[in-house]
Amino acid sequence: MTNKRIAVLTSGGDAPGMNACIRAVVVASEGAGHTVIGFEHGFNGLLAANWRKLDSKKVHNIIQRGGTILRSARCKEFKQDVSAKLAAKHLDELAIDALLVIGGDGSFHGAKHLSNFWDGQVIGLPGTIDNDIYGTDATIGYYTAIETAMDSIDKVRDTADAFERIFLVEVMGRHAGFLGASAALSGAANYVILPELFTDKETTLKDIHQQLSIHRQRYGHESFIIVLTENLWPEGIAELGVQLEELTGGEVRPVILGHIQRGGSPVSQDRMLATLLGVNAVRCVEQNKTGIMVGMQNNKPVEIELSQTWENRKELGDTLTQTMVTMLNERHNWGMTT
Amino acid sequence: MTNKRIAVLTSGGDAPGMNACIRAVVVASEGAGHTVIGFEHGFNGLLAANWRKLDSKKVHNIIQRGGTILRSARCKEFKQDVSAKLAAKHLDELAIDALLVIGGDGSFHGAKHLSNFWDGQVIGLPGTIDNDIYGTDATIGYYTAIETAMDSIDKVRDTADAFERIFLVEVMGRHAGFLGASAALSGAANYVILPELFTDKETTLKDIHQQLSIHRQRYGHESFIIVLTENLWPEGIAELGVQLEELTGGEVRPVILGHIQRGGSPVSQDRMLATLLGVNAVRCVEQNKTGIMVGMQNNKPVEIELSQTWENRKELGDTLTQTMVTMLNERHNWGMTT
Amino acid sequence: MTNKRIAVLTSGGDAPGMNACIRAVVVASEGAGHTVIGFEHGFNGLLAANWRKLDSKKVHNIIQRGGTILRSARCKEFKQDVSAKLAAKHLDELAIDALLVIGGDGSFHGAKHLSNFWDGQVIGLPGTIDNDIYGTDATIGYYTAIETAMDSIDKVRDTADAFERIFLVEVMGRHAGFLGASAALSGAANYVILPELFTDKETTLKDIHQQLSIHRQRYGHESFIIVLTENLWPEGIAELGVQLEELTGGEVRPVILGHIQRGGSPVSQDRMLATLLGVNAVRCVEQNKTGIMVGMQNNKPVEIELSQTWENRKELGDTLTQTMVTMLNERHNWGMTT
Amino acid sequence: MTNKRIAVLTSGGDAPGMNACIRAVVVASEGAGHTVIGFEHGFNGLLAANWRKLDSKKVHNIIQRGGTILRSARCKEFKQDVSAKLAAKHLDELAIDALLVIGGDGSFHGAKHLSNFWDGQVIGLPGTIDNDIYGTDATIGYYTAIETAMDSIDKVRDTADAFERIFLVEVMGRHAGFLGASAALSGAANYVILPELFTDKETTLKDIHQQLSIHRQRYGHESFIIVLTENLWPEGIAELGVQLEELTGGEVRPVILGHIQRGGSPVSQDRMLATLLGVNAVRCVEQNKTGIMVGMQNNKPVEIELSQTWENRKELGDTLTQTMVTMLNERHNWGMTT
Repeated sequence: MTNKRIAVLTSGGDAPGMNACIRAVVVASEGAGHTVIGFEHGFNGLLAANWRKLDSKKVHNIIQRGGTILRSARCKEFKQDVSAKLAAKHLDELAIDALLVIGGDGSFHGAKHLSNFWDGQVIGLPGTIDNDIYGTDATIGYYTAIETAMDSIDKVRDTADAFERIFLVEVMGRHAGFLGASAALSGAANYVILPELFTDKETTLKDIHQQLSIHRQRYGHESFIIVLTENLWPEGIAELGVQLEELTGGEVRPVILGHIQRGGSPVSQDRMLATLLGVNAVRCVEQNKTGIMVGMQNNKPVEIELSQTWENRKELGDTLTQTMVTMLNERHNWGMTT
Repeated sequence: MTNKRIAVLTSGGDAPGMNACIRAVVVASEGAGHTVIGFEHGFNGLLAANWRKLDSKKVHNIIQRGGTILRSARCKEFKQDVSAKLAAKHLDELAIDALLVIGGDGSFHGAKHLSNFWDGQVIGLPGTIDNDIYGTDATIGYYTAIETAMDSIDKVRDTADAFERIFLVEVMGRHAGFLGASAALSGAANYVILPELFTDKETTLKDIHQQLSIHRQRYGHESFIIVLTENLWPEGIAELGVQLEELTGGEVRPVILGHIQRGGSPVSQDRMLATLLGVNAVRCVEQNKTGIMVGMQNNKPVEIELSQTWENRKELGDTLTQTMVTMLNERHNWGMTT
Repeated sequence: MTNKRIAVLTSGGDAPGMNACIRAVVVASEGAGHTVIGFEHGFNGLLAANWRKLDSKKVHNIIQRGGTILRSARCKEFKQDVSAKLAAKHLDELAIDALLVIGGDGSFHGAKHLSNFWDGQVIGLPGTIDNDIYGTDATIGYYTAIETAMDSIDKVRDTADAFERIFLVEVMGRHAGFLGASAALSGAANYVILPELFTDKETTLKDIHQQLSIHRQRYGHESFIIVLTENLWPEGIAELGVQLEELTGGEVRPVILGHIQRGGSPVSQDRMLATLLGVNAVRCVEQNKTGIMVGMQNNKPVEIELSQTWENRKELGDTLTQTMVTMLNERHNWGMTT
Repeated sequence: MTNKRIAVLTSGGDAPGMNACIRAVVVASEGAGHTVIGFEHGFNGLLAANWRKLDSKKVHNIIQRGGTILRSARCKEFKQDVSAKLAAKHLDELAIDALLVIGGDGSFHGAKHLSNFWDGQVIGLPGTIDNDIYGTDATIGYYTAIETAMDSIDKVRDTADAFERIFLVEVMGRHAGFLGASAALSGAANYVILPELFTDKETTLKDIHQQLSIHRQRYGHESFIIVLTENLWPEGIAELGVQLEELTGGEVRPVILGHIQRGGSPVSQDRMLATLLGVNAVRCVEQNKTGIMVGMQNNKPVEIELSQTWENRKELGDTLTQTMVTMLNERHNWGMTT
């Protein structure tokens, strides 16, 4: 087996576990005799030839840290051909055999674009708290974001119960409901509003009202928690709060979790996933693969064409959906019959 | 020593450790032969004669829970004489010797008001995450709220560092800077805006700008975290964010921590404080004291006239202020010279 | 669909998420019109006819609690036919249609034994931190135990790094290495000793010595963490510590995590798993299934013959094993060639 | 004010918050124009002239990390005059004005010993999880160790309740009961065995037996948690467990928390304390003080002669003791009458 020169970068929104992934790439590479360098600030570092050598020592004691030691950034100019050509030039000057890009679908577009102008191997590793990438059951950072959102809902429930109030909790997710669904289920929320299930404001308000009536009857109290995915309610969470107060006559408190969902020490499942993907990416480098994303499906490593990751839409899946129907928004909801 | 009949209620904003305090009152009372009942929903339960008997078994395994098993509420009508008289009647019918009120200064006003119409003993225990009650070094819930805010700042710093962004983090505190100061110091924030130190928007913006310049020079990066107390910036945190973006040319992200600061399992210091105060309140009942709040000063239990708790303003103190000047907003700031 | 009368109990070692599972069973049942009762103290409650009715209200706010509100116990006498007959009698007297048993393989033996004497439906739900049950990818409590063990390793690493010491960390697992492998990988340990890979003391000591030499060379320091599954080292962890001190000349500190691994608020993945399994068990009841365990394989609910769960041995699997070889005990180890 | 050259080291058992203290020293010094260097591995680094320059950038993002970036060690040879002289020589060669020693009483002995052979300023900062240093209300790391021990007791209680078992939890503390007392109180343990209160085995066993009887009667269950300080029970915790099983007829499970108590991200109170002490130590350097430890008493910074810190014994204090009597070992215990 030939020793390889591998470059790695983190790009797009940071996600807990990116450091665990960098570490796995470095440790696996070093054990096999490969060399690793890291570019700083995502694709910007590729354009500026801003890099440093990575070895086991430099990635010691980073597995538990949020953020990314390589920094991250969005890089709009990388869409231009001139940028990709400059990156290719820098990679060639450094005699890099393979570039590993840890990030979300924007970053994978960048990786694909680069591969039009560079002969080396390009491999993506899915890193985003949104879990909205087709081809892998989970993405690095997703598990930690669920945990953070769930912990917040646990805290909110203390006050919701003490005061018998309705709480609205907005979680991230961009345009996918994975984080919202998992946070709502594990946080024992009472209702969830997700992009995959949302139709219109009126229907939703009517449904919440109905659910709340059942809830009051069953539990004898008003403590009711609604989880809402960001970017979904047209006029924003504050407006939804006002509408619900009018509708229900109770007190409604909105909570926007925001950026705390991106940070924190990664939970074990993210560290495991990041490590498995990192190790497998190095194996793919050794097998001269390119133009792929490494992912995990059914607990096994898989490889997906980069373009497939954004051309297909990842579904919530029957198991999750059926469980939500039973536990959250009630059976008779969502036009489903059991 | 006569056996007493003691009633307890939790009132106002819930705070982690209220359950630990209820537990301490019950365990200490039971050990001494007293009887304890709890009113539900704060003063509302007193008006509705909504109560239940409490014993050791009922408070087993609640020390670690946020919220309050007695529920809480605000009760505006309790300001009226007719309400206080009704409460007095219910307390007399239940042959209560002493009423313990766990809450903030609004709740203490209620307790004082009741004492104008009732002969029994009235004792306050300070419970609020804001720590804005004169006469005690700390209030139940304050320590946990610091921890929650600090954890959030730790998480935000992961992204701030990864992206070299400016973050604005809004914490609670009503009109006091304790939570903001402690969260900023323990979270290693770079700047803090507190009611005790705020003069006007213009001066603050100018000062932040200057601090940020020093920071960029010293650290070579833009990651900069500003902690802001709620209710302070006239047009709100979003407007401050926009102003800072204009001023600095960098990306600014606002994060409002909101209600998660009220919940969660109490940290050890809150459980200790709540337990010490609960035990001491029972001692005060045994000593026939009334019209007081029990507090802790310099690690010792103290008793304060209820009216003193709101007539005096609690200061941040020199130690905390000097440390902030050194660690956060820099020496030359705030009109101070060293 | 007929309304059913469902009984549930928790048995064997408690595991975080058992309460989330009870809650899911109750909420799913109530939504479908079924009735649920819970037996206390595992099979002992079945023998003593010690039960109580469960409804949504009684399982509100328990999803986040460790332990089990139904208590658990081991029940040796349940192996006897007379016990199983008595249990059957009690179940018939209560007109129970289906019994759900949440527990490990000892509990499933009990469930199977009962089914020889009772005509009702018997369904197992896998609950154990050891993850040693065939037929399901994960068991309730496993994820939280990994998290607790990993957090402890993170803490130990602080001291290991500060003092450049060797630490031995003993984790649970009975006779399976799942917890050890996952804790070691996510905790960035340097070596792991698991039942699946253990041959003899001498070989292991020699291998550790060799790994430690490579480690010293690569990292330039002595901080080295070894994870060990319980019941594996013949003379116990203390003896291993002494042997390693003699062998390496360094300081070795043993840490036995013990029972803290069984407790704590369940992490989101355990709450999700427990909820999915609980909902699916109710579906199986509705479909008149019996003699099965509900499990999750590849993110989908499955049903397994109860006897299959203990007659087959669950393997660590290639993905996990290969990753350990790369990240922990090094490639040339374990007689493997890459 | 003259600019100073300040050296800092961490010595003895590591404690969470040591990094926060190093950071505070560096930030406060840099703001005032002083220079800071750090010696590695405690006094060993002083003997080996193993040091590096510290500035704001190097201490960025370390406040939340356990352990110590300067490493720690015990250094027996430092007791010899020849060692102290060598250290003095190295300090003079580096033109150091003041040496700050973060550690426990063994480290302070070393600091005092050095001051016999060196003219520079020597200042101690109390860092130990045991809180056994006279002259300061708390020591760096103490609050985090309480939190870790309390969290563990919370977890153990889940199983204790589920199984109705007796648990023995051994915490650190060397020869002081602070950690044991605080962990027991905040963890809602049922009994505590501390050096300050321990007389002999027989009396203790008899008392536990009596307490357990009261407990069974009051709570109707066996779940009972005993906290024990290390180094106290003559034959060790396992023997105590066996004795209790014989005495009570119930199952007893021992748990030794061990080294996890030294690690972990420091809680807010430790970060605050470490920061306040670090800032104040720099002020003491500016005021040319020497031979002192900086501490906190009643929320104010104080200075104590180094020798005073070990010549006096720090007491648990009346408030803590009285609360333990009421909440843990019951009123009629410990020869006290109320």
